[in-house]
Amino acid sequence: MKIAILPGDGIGPEIVDQAVKVLNALDEKFEMESAPVGGAGYAAHGHPLPEGTLALAKAADAVLFGAVGDYQYDNLERALRPEQAILGLRKNLGLFGNLRPAILYPELAGASTLKPEVVSGLDILIVRELTGDIYFGQPRGVRVCPDGPFKGQREGFDTMRYAEGEIRRIAHVAFQAAQKRGKRLTSVDKANVLETFQFWKDIMIDVSKEYPDVALDHMYVDNAAMQLVRAPKKFDVIVTGNMFGDILSDAAAMLTGSIGMLPSASLDANNKGLYEPSHGSAPDIAGKGIANPLATILSAAMMLRFSLNRAEQADRIEKAVKQVLAQGLRTADIYEEGTTKVGTAQMGDAVVKAL
Amino acid sequence: MKIAILPGDGIGPEIVDQAVKVLNALDEKFEMESAPVGGAGYAAHGHPLPEGTLALAKAADAVLFGAVGDYQYDNLERALRPEQAILGLRKNLGLFGNLRPAILYPELAGASTLKPEVVSGLDILIVRELTGDIYFGQPRGVRVCPDGPFKGQREGFDTMRYAEGEIRRIAHVAFQAAQKRGKRLTSVDKANVLETFQFWKDIMIDVSKEYPDVALDHMYVDNAAMQLVRAPKKFDVIVTGNMFGDILSDAAAMLTGSIGMLPSASLDANNKGLYEPSHGSAPDIAGKGIANPLATILSAAMMLRFSLNRAEQADRIEKAVKQVLAQGLRTADIYEEGTTKVGTAQMGDAVVKAL
Ligand SMILES: CC(C)[C@H](C(=O)O)[C@@H](O)C(=O)O
Ligand SMILES: CC(C)[C@H](C(=O)O)[C@@H](O)C(=O)O
Repeated sequence: MKIAILPGDGIGPEIVDQAVKVLNALDEKFEMESAPVGGAGYAAHGHPLPEGTLALAKAADAVLFGAVGDYQYDNLERALRPEQAILGLRKNLGLFGNLRPAILYPELAGASTLKPEVVSGLDILIVRELTGDIYFGQPRGVRVCPDGPFKGQREGFDTMRYAEGEIRRIAHVAFQAAQKRGKRLTSVDKANVLETFQFWKDIMIDVSKEYPDVALDHMYVDNAAMQLVRAPKKFDVIVTGNMFGDILSDAAAMLTGSIGMLPSASLDANNKGLYEPSHGSAPDIAGKGIANPLATILSAAMMLRFSLNRAEQADRIEKAVKQVLAQGLRTADIYEEGTTKVGTAQMGDAVVKAL
Repeated sequence: MKIAILPGDGIGPEIVDQAVKVLNALDEKFEMESAPVGGAGYAAHGHPLPEGTLALAKAADAVLFGAVGDYQYDNLERALRPEQAILGLRKNLGLFGNLRPAILYPELAGASTLKPEVVSGLDILIVRELTGDIYFGQPRGVRVCPDGPFKGQREGFDTMRYAEGEIRRIAHVAFQAAQKRGKRLTSVDKANVLETFQFWKDIMIDVSKEYPDVALDHMYVDNAAMQLVRAPKKFDVIVTGNMFGDILSDAAAMLTGSIGMLPSASLDANNKGLYEPSHGSAPDIAGKGIANPLATILSAAMMLRFSLNRAEQADRIEKAVKQVLAQGLRTADIYEEGTTKVGTAQMGDAVVKAL
């Protein structure tokens, strides 16, 4: 089993180091190989997703990804900016199924901006389609507006689209995830306005016939954004497209107030996957040794479960993380009075010890 | 001055009645004429936006709109469903500038699901473009997928687009609104992925040169969804496109926990406008006389200010609403122990009395 390690920029290298430390502390050893990505890829090879990095990711059984982006790359042209590496990896590896849990650990309930009774015990899973939609649809660009009241002016344009097979495969991922949880699936669309999402809804209903044990409902995206704020615990699994999923999964993560705790998985059709924390590269605190490595460590646990078929090892890591929280250890982002503030490496060491 | 009154469905007629009562209590009398819209339009004339209703709205100086949608219309084909009336009115009347304040009245701070310190005193304004974007872009539909791995399958597709002039005019609305408030404007885009919104961002920057007194910043839509949950009071005015605005304005409204209080205005190039509460038609409580009419009454106040040029009358109504809240009067949706529960008509009467 070979793991590609792509630390990236900002706090990426520090937090990935801790996850590697935890993986190395397991009985079974995995082959790991690192490569630069994002700004680091651009600095080393003139491109955010260098050829060698992509080849390594393709050859590996799973990819552990830190975070990308740093101030010095902000003014590069779009095709060279760090985040293009993420889009390139998703597309080239066919990582269409993004799993983003939003879980609020009881010990961290105070970190949320929402009232404890609204979020305590929150445990929802957002399944976001990751390789289709308006993210990749063609044609797109800037052109002369061909008709209507603005004819002759410049206009920016993009194409939203979902093919039947794309919707079916993400539907199966979502229904199967719901089967393993509370057996409720909410498909989020904008079928009242968009043809793409009326079609999405029709296919979801069709696929639901294969999963009679899962209760499917449908919600417009604007209402979903409201219900996440009003009563987030009413959701079990949410499935939606790439664009709506981008917005809703970040909103859901922020409900917990502890985005430094949230892992993610992006899977292809054979459960090969890329694993990364839900938070960003936080260049403002990079190199200070204070970043929270737990989201990355929990991403490594997801990797063991989904791509490496080592569910017991994943369980061990997740238990160890719960244990360090119970011990009162906190990085700065989740620190509260009465707990013990630790740095990035100390937190990693504590997880290793708790294993 | 002529006002078109479109009560619509569900609680629409009850709440609009109260706003009309308040308008009639002002010294100056306005000519008002009603017409059916939404499900009521379909029931009366076979279309959610009957010709006569559209003609009335076009001829009037302003439109006061209740809400549309009811269970019995849920299974109509899309073109006949109640919400098509809203889209039709926006497009036909050229109502491109949607103003959606999200204000938390101090008396209602407890209604929010967010902690009081995060939302108390919240006062943000979302300026949403309302006649462009993927809502109306052509081509759209279901077709055979022309290329790529899903070639030959059916696919749903839509077109996102913004012409330069469309972006400029909503930019001016937003900058001018910011000038009258805290002089800070956040333009929400997804320039890292979408050509439409890279173009949007470029034009925003260009227009900003005409408003040196307003501080413009840019935020990706996923981050904006997070920041609304994390620290909503940091925003002053937000400007964004039709689709992102749909999602963010509803999320922002729900932060207050009292969406029954929030008005909205949708303006054309000459400040003619359509005014409606931010909430929906709530068919489950229709006819019970318990709906909150304050959002509609406050929408009538916005109408006096923006379209009828009667700012003092608008102020009077807004003060009267604050007064009934201070008196402890509450409809069921915002009721808390220690306050006085009143019905829809009683609330309307109380506002009239407070005038
Ligand atoms: C960096 C950006 C392209 C990306 C996205 O929009 O998908 C990010 O926001 C995410 O959610 O992983
Ligand atoms: C009913 C629907 C078409 C409409 C929209 O999406 O604009 C509504 O959600 C709104 O925000 O007014």
